[in-house]
Amino acid sequence: MEQAATRARINALTMIQGANSGHPAGAFSSIEILLTIYALANLTPENANDFNRDNIIISHGHVSAGAYAVLAEFGFIDINGAVKNFRRCHSAFQGHVVREVPGIDWSTGNLGQGLSAGVGYALAQRARNYDGRVYVFMGDGAQTKGQLAEARRVAVKENLKNITALIDFNEHQICGEIFDVMPCNIKALWEADGWEYLECDGHDFKDLFKTIFKAHKSEKPCVIACKTIMGKFGGVMENTSEYHGKAPGEKNYYDIIKMLGGDENLLNQVLEWRNKNLTPEYKGRDIKPITPVLKFGERFKYSPDTKTDNRSAFGKVLTQTGELNYQQPDKTPILVFDCDLAPSVMTANFKKSCPKNFIQCGIQEHSTATISGAAAAGGTLSIWADFGMFGLDEVYNQHRLSDINNAGNKVVLTHVGLDVGEDGSTHQCIDYVGLIRNMFGWKILVPADPNQTDQITRWMFKNPGCMCLAMGRSKIDVIPEFYDDAYEFEYGKAVKLRSGLDGAIFALGYMTQTALKAADELAKQNIFVSVYCVSCPLEIDLNALSDAVNTKFIMTLEDHNVNTGLASIIANGLVRNNLHAKKFKALGVNDYGLSGSSNEVRKCMGLSVEGVIENVNELLRG
Amino acid sequence: MEQAATRARINALTMIQGANSGHPAGAFSSIEILLTIYALANLTPENANDFNRDNIIISHGHVSAGAYAVLAEFGFIDINGAVKNFRRCHSAFQGHVVREVPGIDWSTGNLGQGLSAGVGYALAQRARNYDGRVYVFMGDGAQTKGQLAEARRVAVKENLKNITALIDFNEHQICGEIFDVMPCNIKALWEADGWEYLECDGHDFKDLFKTIFKAHKSEKPCVIACKTIMGKFGGVMENTSEYHGKAPGEKNYYDIIKMLGGDENLLNQVLEWRNKNLTPEYKGRDIKPITPVLKFGERFKYSPDTKTDNRSAFGKVLTQTGELNYQQPDKTPILVFDCDLAPSVMTANFKKSCPKNFIQCGIQEHSTATISGAAAAGGTLSIWADFGMFGLDEVYNQHRLSDINNAGNKVVLTHVGLDVGEDGSTHQCIDYVGLIRNMFGWKILVPADPNQTDQITRWMFKNPGCMCLAMGRSKIDVIPEFYDDAYEFEYGKAVKLRSGLDGAIFALGYMTQTALKAADELAKQNIFVSVYCVSCPLEIDLNALSDAVNTKFIMTLEDHNVNTGLASIIANGLVRNNLHAKKFKALGVNDYGLSGSSNEVRKCMGLSVEGVIENVNELLRG
Repeated sequence: MEQAATRARINALTMIQGANSGHPAGAFSSIEILLTIYALANLTPENANDFNRDNIIISHGHVSAGAYAVLAEFGFIDINGAVKNFRRCHSAFQGHVVREVPGIDWSTGNLGQGLSAGVGYALAQRARNYDGRVYVFMGDGAQTKGQLAEARRVAVKENLKNITALIDFNEHQICGEIFDVMPCNIKALWEADGWEYLECDGHDFKDLFKTIFKAHKSEKPCVIACKTIMGKFGGVMENTSEYHGKAPGEKNYYDIIKMLGGDENLLNQVLEWRNKNLTPEYKGRDIKPITPVLKFGERFKYSPDTKTDNRSAFGKVLTQTGELNYQQPDKTPILVFDCDLAPSVMTANFKKSCPKNFIQCGIQEHSTATISGAAAAGGTLSIWADFGMFGLDEVYNQHRLSDINNAGNKVVLTHVGLDVGEDGSTHQCIDYVGLIRNMFGWKILVPADPNQTDQITRWMFKNPGCMCLAMGRSKIDVIPEFYDDAYEFEYGKAVKLRSGLDGAIFALGYMTQTALKAADELAKQNIFVSVYCVSCPLEIDLNALSDAVNTKFIMTLEDHNVNTGLASIIANGLVRNNLHAKKFKALGVNDYGLSGSSNEVRKCMGLSVEGVIENVNELLRG
Repeated sequence: MEQAATRARINALTMIQGANSGHPAGAFSSIEILLTIYALANLTPENANDFNRDNIIISHGHVSAGAYAVLAEFGFIDINGAVKNFRRCHSAFQGHVVREVPGIDWSTGNLGQGLSAGVGYALAQRARNYDGRVYVFMGDGAQTKGQLAEARRVAVKENLKNITALIDFNEHQICGEIFDVMPCNIKALWEADGWEYLECDGHDFKDLFKTIFKAHKSEKPCVIACKTIMGKFGGVMENTSEYHGKAPGEKNYYDIIKMLGGDENLLNQVLEWRNKNLTPEYKGRDIKPITPVLKFGERFKYSPDTKTDNRSAFGKVLTQTGELNYQQPDKTPILVFDCDLAPSVMTANFKKSCPKNFIQCGIQEHSTATISGAAAAGGTLSIWADFGMFGLDEVYNQHRLSDINNAGNKVVLTHVGLDVGEDGSTHQCIDYVGLIRNMFGWKILVPADPNQTDQITRWMFKNPGCMCLAMGRSKIDVIPEFYDDAYEFEYGKAVKLRSGLDGAIFALGYMTQTALKAADELAKQNIFVSVYCVSCPLEIDLNALSDAVNTKFIMTLEDHNVNTGLASIIANGLVRNNLHAKKFKALGVNDYGLSGSSNEVRKCMGLSVEGVIENVNELLRG
């Protein structure tokens, strides 16, 4: 093991000096801990692509050079590829560890999220009835991140004794010693949250093994503060914050390599290779989200004389599907996460029917976002339902990291748009399209009525990938066209519900109801407008757009920020496809919303039936 | 005081029943605590608009009905207006408390942010040399939010003994009793973070006063767990989670009002008034961000033969302005916040020159975002510099709440776009425009070179409002036009740096450098394109657009998500102004970025000089 540690240090340092970029000091302080974890865990090159094995999360992803060097020691990767192509475009060996490298279970880089990912994997193991372990390895500087504390509490509440957390306790971060930068009683905090706190020498293999075995036997989730020395065995890099994030420089490099007994020609070979500027061949493995295997029940049908809210329609499908698949060994487990809003987001019945698969995370959204992402990566259909503001705005970056991980989790947002009731601007999620558009993998689904919600929910459960289902709060009408047995939801298609050549209205999700009422009123005035229901706002339906530009105007209607949602996407679709609307009018939200009933708020903000009619008339007059 | 408490309960309940919406149980458990805080604090209707007074933050903003009732007892507002217009459109008395109501210092609603806001106000008081107090009142259910713990640590590190935190400890949250929803050792956690933890009876005025006086004398920041009963004196609402977020209903309302000895006609009067549906007259006070009063030094000038990075140019202005105004009583104090990145974000020299005004918050971005927002609201020029990913993506919702508060803080983002170096996708903030566009108040400033950075930084320091300055990492060229003495930065103007009729390139910030090089190369081929430098991407420069559509194509160039940044904004500008580009090409980022040197990454993603030239040629051929 000690020889492996030396080799790993030589390789890691050569990667970094070759790239002239990276994080050597943390890599050096982490080497023995990494070697020990990978030696102990049931995670091998052979089973790295299976679900039933242990999971390892490296939260401080910047120790990537150390991680790759250690992974090579265990045969996960070819060390030459890593040393030569570290931090090069198209190489798997990125600056922060990514799941594409076998042996890495979570792409990291944004600090403080790793323990949450570990909790997600542990919950997925449990849901799959697999009795494995999860190791989460962290730096000490980010022990202050609030999300970490949230994850600790979920682990204890869920009794995840199979998680072992390890801290590389080198007491250095970028701006100096950790207790100068931000004092933090790390031991007291872990213990206050109910963890067992152990200490060991993070450079002593015997002590590491012994302490981890002790942790395995603990009746609580256990954290090990591994006392280390920043830059250990790195000469000038030892015990200073200076080499946190930069290469040592050639002189220091050679001094350290000599000290470690490494091959002094290695660096030149690497530099020669890099100078050739060939595209790296090894891209790592392909990471795909799972396609859930589930039994589905009959659709619920809402006849045109019923009035219900979309979130209830979602809740019914969730409960039905939950019950049909609960604890069925050949089916994908469904995990549902809540942040103290189950009665409002309609997951309370699922909780009753499938209690072991319902995880109450309390008011801890950051951690819940990551936990639910990692639970999906761990082989479950992972669904987190929350108000739009908390389930998205509060946790954008956590969802972004799940997307980078191609985790495939589902986020169900209720109370989006102005359809929040009286809670006011802090609760109005009028930016869900505008936020999610920034991520490349997520799909958004915004149903227009309960029947469409039923279909879309089933579609979302069936299909792989990160998806967001967004719904308002209020009871709404059934749209007859979606009650029709012939209707089948098709992702990306704008559904034409009215035809007319006087104009075309594109409405986002449930705002379709307002557009339809306006269109029907206008028809009485002999004004005939087309109405398109847009339930998949991220996709441009070119057929619909090409059709719509032939009418006298295009109008967009959304209870969403008018600059970043449907109007913006349609405008982009027009310009990029060289289509010209004769006139264009964007009806949406132009400022933070008011506090009042949803109907009143929409009316005051120009988004009522009357508002649409008035604008149509103006467009046709003008 | 006890009579006041009864009146307040009657008024609060009537507000809620009148609106048929609100949070009665928490309002009832909070009443005595609210009355005590407002009785003790040096915050009165007379000084509520001044800086030099105590601050009160109500973190659990949903107890708004209780807060308004108590504010009326102290003469801040007219009780009739509040009772009649609670939760009505255009009324100041929103569902969650807002700063527009005198006596409220921070608009809240998203839980867990209040202590951070209190820390911000306390730091602002200290920076203004004012020796006041800050009271932060919170619910118990949100004690689990990670951001809260981050704020605790900053308070202790900064020795903010003048903060008194109070918890309405009623042990109920939406989904039940708090220790069932999410176990959390509240006392141990506050103590582990270095606070003094006191307890008292939250319905007993004597105990409340005594305990708060004790807290005032503490040598540490002090939190008081005020033991209360959910829904206290609310009959059926007592000691249950059921009435967390809904009106009691008429029958319960009258039972409770009778018990409290209230006027049984009150509700009818309110309902009659509400039925008239008149627009509420009282909108509250106008909340404006401060315009900093500062002395400025001479501009730094970077001649065309120098090469530096924009962040260094920012750092120089910051240090210069800091030194000129440090501890000058007639100048606005400048507070600079850091999250363990000072050497990279170029605030380390400010720290040396103005040590008392530099706040190291550690790796605790959520709290830092809110602290810096509230510090601005508290009368300082508050500047938080961080990497784009951590200073924006991680804390979007915190910035949104600062915007709703019209706080006027400045966020300086470095390492934005693909200009991060080798750190890879988790560190590439390619969505900063796309995120900030969702907020209505924020301005974005993206300088193209060091001279423009110098001017923009000064402009940002001088002007009121929330602003984000975004810069890359690399050393870049000086653009001669910005070195010219005649150049003056003008917010919203796209600067035309090359003229040509073959096409028009709009480039975002420092990507202008690439556009210029491409244009100069193209000129050698007798292809003449206009180049517009867009440093204020949220503003459409209609003159520039109208000019550009006369050329053969419009191209946008940004190292930003191509769907949500400059291309999207320009496309919107075209469509909404009925302008048609003959051709349109958007060059930007189409997927998560690679890990490599910034130049390599841009090249691999089609954003190099060659990439631009190739696309121009194709547009002109096609």
